[in-house]
Amino acid sequence: MEILITKTAGFCFGVKRAIDIAFRIAREKRKGVFTLGPIIHNPQVVEKLAEKGIVPIHDMRTKKDIKALIIRTHGIPLNISRELDSKGYEIIDATCPFVKKAQYYAKLLSEEGYQVVILGEKNHPEVKSLMSYARKNAIVVNAQSCLPKLKNKVGIVVQTTQPLEALKKVISEATEHAKEIKVYNTICNSTAQRLRETANVAAKVDVMFVVGGKNSANTTQLTKLCKSLSVPTYHIETSAEIKKAWIKRAKKIGITAGASTPTWIIKEVKVRISDIGG
Amino acid sequence: MEILITKTAGFCFGVKRAIDIAFRIAREKRKGVFTLGPIIHNPQVVEKLAEKGIVPIHDMRTKKDIKALIIRTHGIPLNISRELDSKGYEIIDATCPFVKKAQYYAKLLSEEGYQVVILGEKNHPEVKSLMSYARKNAIVVNAQSCLPKLKNKVGIVVQTTQPLEALKKVISEATEHAKEIKVYNTICNSTAQRLRETANVAAKVDVMFVVGGKNSANTTQLTKLCKSLSVPTYHIETSAEIKKAWIKRAKKIGITAGASTPTWIIKEVKVRISDIGG
Repeated sequence: MEILITKTAGFCFGVKRAIDIAFRIAREKRKGVFTLGPIIHNPQVVEKLAEKGIVPIHDMRTKKDIKALIIRTHGIPLNISRELDSKGYEIIDATCPFVKKAQYYAKLLSEEGYQVVILGEKNHPEVKSLMSYARKNAIVVNAQSCLPKLKNKVGIVVQTTQPLEALKKVISEATEHAKEIKVYNTICNSTAQRLRETANVAAKVDVMFVVGGKNSANTTQLTKLCKSLSVPTYHIETSAEIKKAWIKRAKKIGITAGASTPTWIIKEVKVRISDIGG
Repeated sequence: MEILITKTAGFCFGVKRAIDIAFRIAREKRKGVFTLGPIIHNPQVVEKLAEKGIVPIHDMRTKKDIKALIIRTHGIPLNISRELDSKGYEIIDATCPFVKKAQYYAKLLSEEGYQVVILGEKNHPEVKSLMSYARKNAIVVNAQSCLPKLKNKVGIVVQTTQPLEALKKVISEATEHAKEIKVYNTICNSTAQRLRETANVAAKVDVMFVVGGKNSANTTQLTKLCKSLSVPTYHIETSAEIKKAWIKRAKKIGITAGASTPTWIIKEVKVRISDIGG
């Protein structure tokens, strides 16, 4: 049996940076440091960080002993950001710099008078933060939605983990409505490259494993992509989930992983496949 | 036999305006008034205007008795415009206001640091004028071309008579290259409406006649559209070109016409079809 692993599997620049910041703070063993929501969308990493003393909180109003807050990779909405400022907490900003850029462009488009269209998943924290920067009249669409009636001047900004094809679709639809369109393609290069490489590997194998948080947007994108290529695909968080039956007849197995999946989990998946695949 | 004529056939706003200006000047019987190039892309109208004393010149340097120049619907390049200013001729500007808008946006995009992409036919006078406003680094593409390597910041402006589908294609390709795209959809509504209506009529008939100048970009677009719908299609300038054999077996015949085709020519075509189709 042959196992192919995508080169881009695992931590992207933004996640690596956030994890480095969080574990550095953890080493300082300070009291009262929390992350506001899970720092990245990977439960195993979040657990490891909690073991070092930094746990996520979801509502700062319910917590009394806060001294410092680490902002997660996906960023936070502008109103929360202002609330944090007013409370005087120390802020350790681990927002991915590419998400920061998307926030900036959402704000800019709004200030320039565009009706802002955000391509992304509306319940994702990154998209919620983009919404707050784009302010009134902004709408969120995904690759499946049909655009509602838009204004004549439309600005488009994108959740960093969306596929390019979805952006092309949204722009094409917006062209039916608006006479002026400004697009900031804020899809991060690492996402685009990972999608391309995953498609290449998926085309060569009998079974595909996508490793990463079930709540991770970019991991879910990878799973969707592999399924669309008609390869039997399993989205798993850890090696423990793998069933022998899945790989019984497979000669070539592919592994890819989301931007928030640590290398040790990918390695464990590889070892487990080798073990049970014989 | 039934004859269907598109409601939008014939003069658009910009052409009507230019013709009104030119014939008004003609009525004044002034000496030394010329159009710089044919006022519109319809030889029959240009001929009628010449009978009234206003003829087109192509190079003002070869003409000595110029007093005033009428600028045609398609506009003129910026350098020619400056040359005219320096010569002190009276300028009567019959440029279509929608073309003026496209010129303005080409200039704006260039000033804002975008690499300007003009969707259109590179030898068309309107596109030549847009090129001059977009200045250095601007490129012209049409629906058939593949985009060359572009800069990271691309601005798109469109010849007013292009079809929307071509614009969608170019934007989609530009999305592969650029991170920031600004689009001014300068396709005029009249063109879009005429294309839609022509497609509707073409779908219902056995033979389609497209009436208009052979050098008219929007008339050529209509012909292309009808042919793409697999209807036998004839692009004619006048009724004299119609052959009996073309309509021998036709039960329903469609007529559409470009933005620069006068009503009297469309009527003549209808009469001739009725006569020979009997």
